[in-house]
Amino acid sequence: MTRLVVCCFSLSIDGFGAGPRQDLENPLGVGGPAMFDWFFRTRTFQRMHGGGEGGETGVDDDFAARGFDGIGAWILGRNMFGPVRGPWPDEAWKGWWGEEPPYHVPVFVLTHHPRAPLAMKGGTTFHFVTDGIESALRQAKEAAGGKDVRLGGGVATIRQYLRARLIDELHLVISPVLMGAGESLFAGLDLASLGYECVGHVPGSRAASHVTVRRRE
Amino acid sequence: MTRLVVCCFSLSIDGFGAGPRQDLENPLGVGGPAMFDWFFRTRTFQRMHGGGEGGETGVDDDFAARGFDGIGAWILGRNMFGPVRGPWPDEAWKGWWGEEPPYHVPVFVLTHHPRAPLAMKGGTTFHFVTDGIESALRQAKEAAGGKDVRLGGGVATIRQYLRARLIDELHLVISPVLMGAGESLFAGLDLASLGYECVGHVPGSRAASHVTVRRRE
Repeated sequence: MTRLVVCCFSLSIDGFGAGPRQDLENPLGVGGPAMFDWFFRTRTFQRMHGGGEGGETGVDDDFAARGFDGIGAWILGRNMFGPVRGPWPDEAWKGWWGEEPPYHVPVFVLTHHPRAPLAMKGGTTFHFVTDGIESALRQAKEAAGGKDVRLGGGVATIRQYLRARLIDELHLVISPVLMGAGESLFAGLDLASLGYECVGHVPGSRAASHVTVRRRE
Repeated sequence: MTRLVVCCFSLSIDGFGAGPRQDLENPLGVGGPAMFDWFFRTRTFQRMHGGGEGGETGVDDDFAARGFDGIGAWILGRNMFGPVRGPWPDEAWKGWWGEEPPYHVPVFVLTHHPRAPLAMKGGTTFHFVTDGIESALRQAKEAAGGKDVRLGGGVATIRQYLRARLIDELHLVISPVLMGAGESLFAGLDLASLGYECVGHVPGSRAASHVTVRRRE
C-alpha cells in the first residue's frame, strides 16, 4: 500500500521546522541551517550535492539514505520549490537544485498558480497542482507505482496534511537548537487527538535525535 | 556564585511539560507520566520513593542524581506543592511527598496566600512566599548557603522565570511522547531572543534525550 511519509524533517527543541524571515538568501529561515547540521554532514547529502564519497556514514546517514529509498513520488509546498510568490512571471525558476534535482521521480508542487510540467535531468518532473492537497496526494499516489509518496515540506504544508490525517508516518529529527521564532510544527495542532503517536526513538550519530511518529489505524 | 537552575525537566516532543487536566488524581496531567518514564526507572527515583537499591544506573540516573547535588534551596510553584487552590483552608496539606520530602533543604513555595513555614522530617522546610518570583529567588539564594537554587516547576512558574531571564541553566529531558495538549513550555516564548542557547545534548539510557540550555552572560 502506498503511504504518505515525511522523512528527515528537522525540528528545533522548541518545535520550529524553519527559522523566521525565509527568503532567497535564507531558504531555511534565519538560523534555520543549524537544525540541518546532522544532515549536511551525511554521505547522502554530500553525494546529492556533488561531494562524491565525502560525508559521514552511521545512524544519521542511514536515516538520510532511507528517506530516498522506496519513494515513487514527492509532494512539495511551493516555498520548498522556490521563493517566487504569486503568479509565475515566466519559466525561469526551476527549483533550488540546478539542472538535475535529487528526486529522480515525479514531484507534485502545491501552488495556486498553474504552470506547465517541467521535466528536468535525471528523471525528475515537476507537476504543478492547483486544486489542493488531496488532489496532489491522489496524483502522487498514482504516479508512485506502488512505492511511497514523500512529503518534503515545508512546515505549513505538513500541518495541512496532518490536520487532514493524510500522513501515515513522520520521521522527525530533533536538533539541540533553540530557534525562538519561525514556523512551528506543533503550535495549535493536537497530534495525539489526530491519532498520532511516537513509535520509535533513536539517538543520532551527532547531536540530533530521530523520532518516528505514526498514525494509528 | 549561586545559580538558579532547572534540572530533569521532562518535555514531550511537542513541547509540553505537563498533560492536560491536572488534578489530585493526575498531578502530572492526563498522560503526563509517560514523559517521566525515564526518571521513574532510575535508582535515584527509586531511592527517593522507598525502593531501596532498585532502579537503573547509567546516564539517566547520573542526571537524576546530579539534580540533587549541590542544591541549597528549591523554589516550587504552588501546583507543584499541591492541588489546593485559593486560601489555605487549614494546615492539613503538607505536599505530595509524605512526612519526609526528598528535598532536605529549604523550599520556597510561590503562592498568593500566606501560610506559616512548615518544617518536615529530614531537613525540608516549606516557606510560603506571597510577594513574587524575585522575592522567592532572593530568599532562596540567601538560604542556599552558596549552593545552587533549583526551580522545580511547574511549567507556568518556569515560564515566568524565563521571561524575567532569571534562570541560569535548564536541563531538559525530551521524551519520545506526543502529548497533543497540556502546558507548553515554549509557546509564545522566544528563548533565543531572551538569550538562551543549547550548549549540550546527551542521548539517554532509554528513549529520552538530555538537553542543556544556558543563558548567555
